Amino acid sequence: MISSRYHLDGLVKMAKRQLLLLSSSNVHGHEYLEYAAKDICELLTLNNVSTVLFVPYALSNHEEYLKKVEQPFRRWGFQVESIHNQNPLEAVKQAEAIFIGGGNTFRLLKTLYDLNLVEAINERVLKNGIPYIGSSAGTNVATRSIHTTNDMPIVYPPSFDSLNLVPFNINPHYQDPDDGSKHKGETREERIMQYLEEKDSSHVLGLREGATLSVNGNTAVLKGLIGARLFIKGQKPREIDVGSDLSYLLKE
Amino acid sequence: MISSRYHLDGLVKMAKRQLLLLSSSNVHGHEYLEYAAKDICELLTLNNVSTVLFVPYALSNHEEYLKKVEQPFRRWGFQVESIHNQNPLEAVKQAEAIFIGGGNTFRLLKTLYDLNLVEAINERVLKNGIPYIGSSAGTNVATRSIHTTNDMPIVYPPSFDSLNLVPFNINPHYQDPDDGSKHKGETREERIMQYLEEKDSSHVLGLREGATLSVNGNTAVLKGLIGARLFIKGQKPREIDVGSDLSYLLKE
Repeated sequence: MISSRYHLDGLVKMAKRQLLLLSSSNVHGHEYLEYAAKDICELLTLNNVSTVLFVPYALSNHEEYLKKVEQPFRRWGFQVESIHNQNPLEAVKQAEAIFIGGGNTFRLLKTLYDLNLVEAINERVLKNGIPYIGSSAGTNVATRSIHTTNDMPIVYPPSFDSLNLVPFNINPHYQDPDDGSKHKGETREERIMQYLEEKDSSHVLGLREGATLSVNGNTAVLKGLIGARLFIKGQKPREIDVGSDLSYLLKE
Repeated sequence: MISSRYHLDGLVKMAKRQLLLLSSSNVHGHEYLEYAAKDICELLTLNNVSTVLFVPYALSNHEEYLKKVEQPFRRWGFQVESIHNQNPLEAVKQAEAIFIGGGNTFRLLKTLYDLNLVEAINERVLKNGIPYIGSSAGTNVATRSIHTTNDMPIVYPPSFDSLNLVPFNINPHYQDPDDGSKHKGETREERIMQYLEEKDSSHVLGLREGATLSVNGNTAVLKGLIGARLFIKGQKPREIDVGSDLSYLLKE
């Protein structure tokens, strides 16, 4: 029944979308993931989630990564199971909620393709409406493509297209230009502008560390501790304050 | 004659290699390319070069880029012709020397593939021995792959394999970790270490801004204003002083 409504009506599909996209897991002055605890717990509790499926593919040591992630979630009252300890595709199909952590975005996306998980996660989140939490690389892959990651291209994925849970790009760990710097490499803003040169129309949301995008159906709101910077082709970048409605970014 | 020697004897091929690989064109306190003027002029003069073929594909505005690059080369007594104003493949075949400037490495490499220039440049440099000067993105593509670029993946090239003029990787604009930083994104060293995790054996030379690698046949020497940092899988990173012999990196 859900399946047919999904294909008949895009709005029904989108109405199920529940995402929490974090710029980073670590924020200066806060314990791992702790700055986002309220938003994470609220999302999981509202959906009666007891166990979160963790995807550790962005780092090489999955078991160590799992141990790190279990701590805050357990403290908050949630179990964590890692996808690397089970049949990955089955785990996605059974998941109550998914958390994809940070690390290297290229390694993460390549692994998702290698294991045939891209479409499976997209369906589980957009069609079945399970909560998706991403941080850093996990936020990059949640968008339409990884074209605006900061990471080093250490492996070659079969495509830069990603989970496409939102129809725009995010740049996590967004950093403002440092006027006092003697470094001559491109600033983050210059890099994002180079991406926009390649597109006919495009939006890139630069999420500073501590900023979070909450998406509920067709509504998007900036949450967290700090504002974001929005880049739109042909326009001057604009500042986005915490609490701002960003639902217009969800229109393809 | 050159062709048959090339295929019969790898050493003959390598003996022709003449490269100058710059970390960056801009260095704090110096005019554009000026810090490397002596090394550039020496390389071109020794080879009786009068006209340099410029490859501007890493930036979007080729004409503007050409105007910028012409200035220092003219001042030093060399003509510059840009590949974007002629038949690209023919231009490579006729070139006396090639200079590939910085910008976005992904855009640069994709364009080289789109125009069938990867093999042509490789042959012209390794087989015919014309001087190759690269800066930043132009240094990245000179190595075996672009896996260690700092750039944003704004376009999807058909491969990360590049010109393969040297059998290792370079990270240009290398930056040491900033212990005072509140930023939680990966340091450059962490990113390079993630790359080494993916390889059985590999070398990455981190060229700080102002550092230059000079390759003459099977000899490589660090030149420029500042040292480099060398990353080898399974070993502690080591400091490389200006003037150091790095020829061992050329052994595949």
